[in-house]
Formats: sequence, structure tokens, C-alpha cells
Amino acid sequence: MSNQSPPDVSCCPSLTERRMPAEAATVLAPAFKALGDPVRLQLMSMIASAESGEICVCDLTPAFDLTGPTISHHLRTLREAGLVDAERRGTWVYYRARPAILRQLAALLTAAPAPDA
Amino acid sequence: MSNQSPPDVSCCPSLTERRMPAEAATVLAPAFKALGDPVRLQLMSMIASAESGEICVCDLTPAFDLTGPTISHHLRTLREAGLVDAERRGTWVYYRARPAILRQLAALLTAAPAPDA
Repeated sequence: MSNQSPPDVSCCPSLTERRMPAEAATVLAPAFKALGDPVRLQLMSMIASAESGEICVCDLTPAFDLTGPTISHHLRTLREAGLVDAERRGTWVYYRARPAILRQLAALLTAAPAPDA
Repeated sequence: MSNQSPPDVSCCPSLTERRMPAEAATVLAPAFKALGDPVRLQLMSMIASAESGEICVCDLTPAFDLTGPTISHHLRTLREAGLVDAERRGTWVYYRARPAILRQLAALLTAAPAPDA
């Protein structure tokens, strides 16, 4: 199972610093869009807070009143946005968060220090 | 011109801490969704980085190769998501960022400290 390369957002200062270049916005918007759904936000929190660092799809699906294919669709969206990695082992797929991309999104939303700080 | 109340996200720990409750996810997802578009991300960065703390729609629209109504639609989406405030003064509408909601989204994406930290 191939995983998406994480977006290269090392380029991008805080939103409060200056206008984001169009190219950076095109790279970053899909990650925010992927988080812009209540089920995906909950899935992302379950994956990112998994005690062992990963969680089986077999533990994610029963936590929602949704079909397996619907959960799989949401998980694929998170994976294609570079927010999670997926690994098939035997019957099940295991998901783990990509902390670097979460940190980069957080940095983007964090106010830049004042110029004289 | 009325502005939306900002989402109350003071409730919500980091995504890495525990599963996000469905109610919190429903409140927060629209803010991420609003940022999930390249033009809106650029608009948000122009508003959040405005030197005087606010920026006129008359300075936003010419920065894009898009019609005025399209820019207005994107700005309304940012406003309805609680990310910006808008104020009409005379002919023009002026936009300013809501730093609190940006801080709260950033906190959500920031890893919680380890329990023994």
C-alpha cells in the first residue's frame, strides 16, 4: 500500500507574516480540506492519539455509525492529504499520524513573533 | 454587517491527546474546511498579515485573477467559519483576522506534551 509524500511546507511562514504564495496554498489547502469534515477530524484524533502510535481500521470502523466503505473513503482522504500513513498487515490496515505535517499546519496558524520581539 | 460568533473550541484538547467528541468535531470542521481552498488560504494570509490589522476588500480583489463576486463568496465563507470579522465603512468592507480561533486551531494540531513531561 503506497502512501502519499507529505506536502513540502517547509517553505511557508505563518499566515500572519505575509501573503502565502499561490503555489504553497495549492500544496497546503488539501490538508486543511481533509480536516474539514467532522468524521475525518474524529478519525484523525483517534489515529493521532493511539497509544501504540498506530491503530487498526478494525478499531476505527466500529467507533462510528457508518459503513466500512464510508470509513475507508474518509481514511483514504486523510492518506491522500499526507496526514496519515497506512500499512496493510495480514487482514487489516493500520494507520499512524504524520506528526511533521500536523506541526507544519500548526505553525502556519500560529502568529509570527512581532518584528521587534 | 453581522459577524458570526466564533466557534467555542475552548473545550478541545490536542488531536494527539484523545478522541475528539463528535460535537466538538462538528463545531471545528467548518473552520478547517474554510481553509481548505487555495484562494481562501491566500486571502486569509493577506488578512492576517495586514499591517494595520485590517484590509479593504478593494485591496484583496485586485490581487487575484478572479471576479469580485467570487472573491466576495470566498470572504463570506471565511466569515461564516468565524475566521475573520467584516465591517462595512462607506463604500468598502474591511476584514480582520480573529487570532483566537487561529490559535485554537493551531493548539488542536499541536502535539500534547507527554504525560510524564
